Amino acid sequence: MSLTVVGSIAFDSVRTPFGERDRMLGGSAVHFALAAGFFTRVHVVGPVGEDFGAAEMEVLVERGVETADVERVAGGETFFWRGHYEHDMNLAHTDDTRLNVFADFEPKLSDASRTADTLFLGNIQPDLQRRVRSECGAARLTALDSMNLWIETTRPSLVAAIAEVEVLLLNDAELRMLVSEPNLARAAAAAMALGPRVVVAKRGEYGAALFTPEVQFAIPGYLLEDVRDPTGAGDSFAGGFLGYLDGAAAYELDEDHLRRAMAFGSVMASFNVEDFGIERIRRLTHEEIGERLREFKRLSHFDEPQVPAGGGARTG
Amino acid sequence: MSLTVVGSIAFDSVRTPFGERDRMLGGSAVHFALAAGFFTRVHVVGPVGEDFGAAEMEVLVERGVETADVERVAGGETFFWRGHYEHDMNLAHTDDTRLNVFADFEPKLSDASRTADTLFLGNIQPDLQRRVRSECGAARLTALDSMNLWIETTRPSLVAAIAEVEVLLLNDAELRMLVSEPNLARAAAAAMALGPRVVVAKRGEYGAALFTPEVQFAIPGYLLEDVRDPTGAGDSFAGGFLGYLDGAAAYELDEDHLRRAMAFGSVMASFNVEDFGIERIRRLTHEEIGERLREFKRLSHFDEPQVPAGGGARTG
Repeated sequence: MSLTVVGSIAFDSVRTPFGERDRMLGGSAVHFALAAGFFTRVHVVGPVGEDFGAAEMEVLVERGVETADVERVAGGETFFWRGHYEHDMNLAHTDDTRLNVFADFEPKLSDASRTADTLFLGNIQPDLQRRVRSECGAARLTALDSMNLWIETTRPSLVAAIAEVEVLLLNDAELRMLVSEPNLARAAAAAMALGPRVVVAKRGEYGAALFTPEVQFAIPGYLLEDVRDPTGAGDSFAGGFLGYLDGAAAYELDEDHLRRAMAFGSVMASFNVEDFGIERIRRLTHEEIGERLREFKRLSHFDEPQVPAGGGARTG
Repeated sequence: MSLTVVGSIAFDSVRTPFGERDRMLGGSAVHFALAAGFFTRVHVVGPVGEDFGAAEMEVLVERGVETADVERVAGGETFFWRGHYEHDMNLAHTDDTRLNVFADFEPKLSDASRTADTLFLGNIQPDLQRRVRSECGAARLTALDSMNLWIETTRPSLVAAIAEVEVLLLNDAELRMLVSEPNLARAAAAAMALGPRVVVAKRGEYGAALFTPEVQFAIPGYLLEDVRDPTGAGDSFAGGFLGYLDGAAAYELDEDHLRRAMAFGSVMASFNVEDFGIERIRRLTHEEIGERLREFKRLSHFDEPQVPAGGGARTG
């Protein structure tokens, strides 16, 4: 079992009602890898600049993530994002985005990355996603994330990329936008018609929903009192989801494994938002993951009563 | 076991992307009673005008609802609401509201209504809710719904009304508004500090969440492909929730009963939105309720795996 992720490696400057951080380690590939690293061997593919130091690299290494394909671009600067959240933490406000080394990124995969069993195409330009996808011809499980920017500006490329993966993960609003269908279940069906066997709608604080032609699954969000920074929650979800599937060698995407993957994705996202950037996930343990998984199970558990026959209703 | 509901009885004219209806039977007390009527004996308290006919009354009677306290106001017209929904069915657009007989409504309760075990104060002016609450001194379980209008215009009265009930049900946005707290779990805690032992946040298509000092419970919404008209979904939820608790004589509000009540509330709301107004609930059967309850249980079920110890992560 091994998993390759391609995506952004970034410095994020973030302000929320609960504090702020300057140039903390972030990016879709980083959040994904640190979550998935609990479950399987992860290879990260992505560019950084000369400002990316040993301390940042060590965060990945200490989680056991393979960093051979983290490409250091001479003279370049690492992708940078500055944003803030108001009290409604569901909405990120972008104040500055500097692509830097990402502007000319051409993914180069080592043999180890290219031959991984599972491939996650993080949220980058769809033609880049397709190029990586074509290099990883042996992958047994492939998944893709994207965003409104690519739906609006490069939809044909994005649709072609989606057609080449088994699992599509998107925010629910972006899933609806992708297929111009406001009903989530119908939007998922329309997205499956583009190619993927599985569609996962990430719903922020409301949790996530999964659709296959046979299965509908929904998990509520964990009801946290302390959400300090939602940045990276979606990528942590994807990391828990795909990391679990790869670690369990569940390449057939059977229903039981998909349901558990949704639970692990939700667990990892719930930890991610408890602190800024990667701070919570960095200090997380397997024991805490298991404990929260049990809390998640309890969160929506009810035992199944008989329907009371009381009242004056006709029984049909 | 018996349950009294006070609230609006209305004619609704509704247009959605899936059709429209003119002057169909509606109102919070009606939607609530038709759902709760599957579980227990329901007494409806509310005013109607001379335009309210035998056919409308028969809809309540055929569900076994007690209509002795449906007050027909001579020369009056029934409360009327006209609204529409765009493709985003989470947002109702009000085009016309005519209080009519509701403008001068003074609740008059028969002995049977006054001595019910459970009381639901539907979304009406909070001073009216308090008057009904004071008349039903023997109620063992009391609950209240409200809306942004009363939070904005009569907050002190509403807070006083909330202090006098065991269960507060609100839309999640309104719960946050009530206590000026964007985090849902914190908002629920702040609302409990006003008096209620139980706070239920209704979350539209995302389901519902329940909070007590000891319990957090969340249930996702049913993933329906066909949502024709969401009008009354919240009241159908409340009807299933409280109707089940009263029918099961669960006046102690123990955790197991509360969890089941959330499931029955969600089941009734999911049926409500499948057709216009009361049309789906009117033709519903106990068998269908039991079937959907099992589907709801399956919707968010996962079996609990060991956390894979794979990957390179330190185990903490």
